[in-house]
Amino acid sequence: MATSTSSTPAYRDLTRLPHVVIIGGGFAGIATARGLANQHVRVTIVDKHNFHTFLPLLYQVATAGLEPADVAYPIRTIFGNADNIGFRHARVSVVDHSRNLVVLDDDTELAYDHLVVATGATAAFFGIPGASKYSLPLYSLADARKLRNRLLLALERADVESEQASVTLNFVVVGGGPTGVETSGALSELIRIAIKRDGLRLEASDVRVLLVDLAPRLLTAFPESASRYAKKELEELGVEIQFGRSVVEVEENAIRFSDGERIETAAVVWAAGVTASGTLSHDLQASPGPGGRARVTADLRLVESVNVWAVGDAAAVPINDSEFCPQLAPVAIQSGRHCAAQILRVLDAKETVPFRYRNKGIMATIGRHAAVAKLPRGGVIKGTAGWLAWLGLHLWYLVGFRNKIRVMINWTWRYFDWPSGPRLIVADAETAE
Amino acid sequence: MATSTSSTPAYRDLTRLPHVVIIGGGFAGIATARGLANQHVRVTIVDKHNFHTFLPLLYQVATAGLEPADVAYPIRTIFGNADNIGFRHARVSVVDHSRNLVVLDDDTELAYDHLVVATGATAAFFGIPGASKYSLPLYSLADARKLRNRLLLALERADVESEQASVTLNFVVVGGGPTGVETSGALSELIRIAIKRDGLRLEASDVRVLLVDLAPRLLTAFPESASRYAKKELEELGVEIQFGRSVVEVEENAIRFSDGERIETAAVVWAAGVTASGTLSHDLQASPGPGGRARVTADLRLVESVNVWAVGDAAAVPINDSEFCPQLAPVAIQSGRHCAAQILRVLDAKETVPFRYRNKGIMATIGRHAAVAKLPRGGVIKGTAGWLAWLGLHLWYLVGFRNKIRVMINWTWRYFDWPSGPRLIVADAETAE
Repeated sequence: MATSTSSTPAYRDLTRLPHVVIIGGGFAGIATARGLANQHVRVTIVDKHNFHTFLPLLYQVATAGLEPADVAYPIRTIFGNADNIGFRHARVSVVDHSRNLVVLDDDTELAYDHLVVATGATAAFFGIPGASKYSLPLYSLADARKLRNRLLLALERADVESEQASVTLNFVVVGGGPTGVETSGALSELIRIAIKRDGLRLEASDVRVLLVDLAPRLLTAFPESASRYAKKELEELGVEIQFGRSVVEVEENAIRFSDGERIETAAVVWAAGVTASGTLSHDLQASPGPGGRARVTADLRLVESVNVWAVGDAAAVPINDSEFCPQLAPVAIQSGRHCAAQILRVLDAKETVPFRYRNKGIMATIGRHAAVAKLPRGGVIKGTAGWLAWLGLHLWYLVGFRNKIRVMINWTWRYFDWPSGPRLIVADAETAE
Repeated sequence: MATSTSSTPAYRDLTRLPHVVIIGGGFAGIATARGLANQHVRVTIVDKHNFHTFLPLLYQVATAGLEPADVAYPIRTIFGNADNIGFRHARVSVVDHSRNLVVLDDDTELAYDHLVVATGATAAFFGIPGASKYSLPLYSLADARKLRNRLLLALERADVESEQASVTLNFVVVGGGPTGVETSGALSELIRIAIKRDGLRLEASDVRVLLVDLAPRLLTAFPESASRYAKKELEELGVEIQFGRSVVEVEENAIRFSDGERIETAAVVWAAGVTASGTLSHDLQASPGPGGRARVTADLRLVESVNVWAVGDAAAVPINDSEFCPQLAPVAIQSGRHCAAQILRVLDAKETVPFRYRNKGIMATIGRHAAVAKLPRGGVIKGTAGWLAWLGLHLWYLVGFRNKIRVMINWTWRYFDWPSGPRLIVADAETAE
C-alpha cells in the first residue's frame, strides 16, 4: 500500500462510521449492501467466493447452456462504484455476539455495529442414506460444474461401451419443484442435442431422464393446470415422470425406492428441498424456525437481538402468526432492501417498520421454449410468448445491479448459440498436469 | 445402443475401411482429421481432453479476458458433420508399433493401419530446481485457470494485508518470447483494471510485473525494431523488463537469480521455452530431434516407418539438412493437412510428396491495443490498426473449423466487455463443498 499522503483514498475517512458486516453475497446480502451503498455506514461483505452466483440459472450451467462466467459476478465489481462497501474473501469461523465480533478463517476479526446474516440455503437430504454423498444438488457453481462433467463423461463412457453391448444410461432427478422441472427438461434437451450434433453412437432412446417425486403432481406451489402443462411439456422433451415414489437410498451408481426397485444411475440430481445453511444460528443462539431458518421479528432482527439481522433464505420471516415467507429470490431481495433501510433508521434513532413481502409470482421454465408462471393474483401464464416477456422482466428485476445490458446480451447470445455451444468436460482439465 | 436394424447408422459401414488413429486434438491433430473427413478411411482421434484448446489465446484466459469456453471447442462438435471421424476421451498408455496397436488407459486397444502422433509440446524447465513444481506454465486450459486464480487470490490477500502494512506484490514472467510478452502485458493491464474497478485498497504501484530473460532483447525471432517497440509498449503498460537474467531456482514464493538476488513472488509464469510432450517417441523408437521432437522424413513419416507419422510441435520437420520448422500453429496446421493427404496417397498406392512450410509470419500482441507482426518477407507491422486487421485474418485462418462466426462474435464481445468482465476465482468453487 502506498504511504504517500497526497493520494489517500476516500475509504480512510470511512473508518469512523458505524460498521455493518454482511455474511453472504447472495441475493439477500447483495440487496442489503446495495441499500447501504453510499450511505453513512461502512459495510464489509464476507463470502467464501469472490463472486455472487445467479442461482436461478445454475441449471443452465449444469446442462452446458451457459458458462460459469455468465451466472457469476465478482462482488467487488458489483460495488466498484461504492466507496463504503468492502469485501472479504473468507469463511466465517465463529460469530461472538457478546463481543460483536466475527472471526474469519484467516484468524482476523471484524468488529461490527450491525451484523446481517445472509447465508442462504443448501440442499436438504432428509437423512436419506447416501443422498448427501452420492447425489448432486444444484446450489453452487461447483455443483453445476460437477453435474455437467458427470453428464458429459457418462455419455463418453457409454459411447465406448456401446461398441460391445447395448447400453442404457439413467439420469434420475429427485424432486418435482421448479429446480427439478428445469433441470430434467434441460438435461433431456442437452442429451438429444449432444447425440445429434456430436457424432456419438448412442441413440436418444439409450438415455433415460427420469423425474421422481413423492407428491402426486409437479410444481405443487402452482395451480393444477400449470402442473398438467409442465408434465405434458416435459414428456414431449423425453422426460419420464413418476409420482408417489419415495427414495430410501442413493448409492454410488444407483438409487433405491421404498417399493424395493433399484435403478442403476449415471447421476442422481437432488432437487428435493432446501434447508438454511451453516451453523451461524447456533453461534447466535437464534430460535430455530422452519427449515433450520433463524426466526426473526417483523423488522428482520433476530428475536431478542438489537443489532443482528437475518435476511433471505437464512431467515424465517413471518407473514402472520403461523406463516412464513417462502425461500425465493424476490423475498431475499426485498428483505435485504428492507433490512438496509431499518439499519439506517436505527442509526438515525428512528423506529423500525415491519417487513411486508410483495408477491411477484413464481415461474418455472421447461426446456428452452416453454414456461409456466403463477402471477401474484393467482393467474397462470403458459407457453412461449408469455414466457419470453415474463422471463425478460423477471431477469431484469433479479439482476438488479450494474452491467444489466452486458448480462442480457450474454444470455441472449448463449441462448441462441446453445446447440453449437461448447460441451466441455473441464474438471478433467483441472486435475490433469 | 439400439439394436433395431432399420436405423443402423452410417458408421457401421465404415468398419472395413483403413483405420487412422490420431493421438492429440491440437492444431496438428485436428488439421490431419479435417484432411481425412469424409474420405475413404475411418479416423479415431484420441485425447485426454474432450476439447481442442486454442492455445494462442490461453494468456487471455489466464488474465480473465476470455472464458475457458471461448478458447475450447469439443472435438466431437468440430467433426459432428463427418461420419468417419470418431473420438476417444482417453490417455494413451503405450503404443505397440510392432503389432500396430495403441493401448489406452481404460485398457482398450485400438488397432491402426496408420498412426499420427500429434502430441504437441509442453513447457521446458531445463532442469532448473523448483521450476516445474512452483512456476506456472501456460500450455493448457488448466494452466490458464491456475494462473488466473493465483493472481486474483494474491490481490485479495494483499488487500487484507495492506490494512496493517505496506505491501508489494511481485509477478515474475520468465521468458521474453511471444508468450512472455503477451502474458506480462495482459497481467499488468488486468491488475490496473482490477485495482481501479474493484475497490481494492491496493494501488497500482504496490504491484510489480517483472519480465526477465537471459537474452539482451525481447522477441528474438523478430527484427530489432519490433523488439524495441515491444519493450516501449510493455513499459508503458507498467511492465518492468530485465535482460541478461538467469534463473537458478524457483521456490514456492520466490525466485532466485544467478547473481544471488532473490525476489519474493506472488506467482512465477514460465514462458521460457517448449519441449515435445510425452513418452511416445520412446515407444516408437523414434530418432530424437531438437527439443525432444521425433525426427521425420520429408513426407512426415517417422524415420524407418511406413505407417507412423508425426506432425506439429511433436515432430522435427526438416526444412533442409540442418534446419527444422519452428514450433508454431501454422506449421502444425500445414503439416497436419499434408500428412492427411499423404496417408490418402499411400492408401491409393501413390508416391508421397515432401512437405514444404509456407511461412505465414509471426505475431505477438502487447496489451489490448498494440501488436508486432513479422511478415513472411521480413517486414514488420506495429501498432493498433495493422494489428486489428492482421489479428482478424490470423484468427480466422487459425480457427479453421465450423462456428467461425460464433467464435469471432464471442471474442469481439469479450474484448470490448473485458473491463467489466468477470474476474472469478473459480478453483475456489471447485474445492468448496
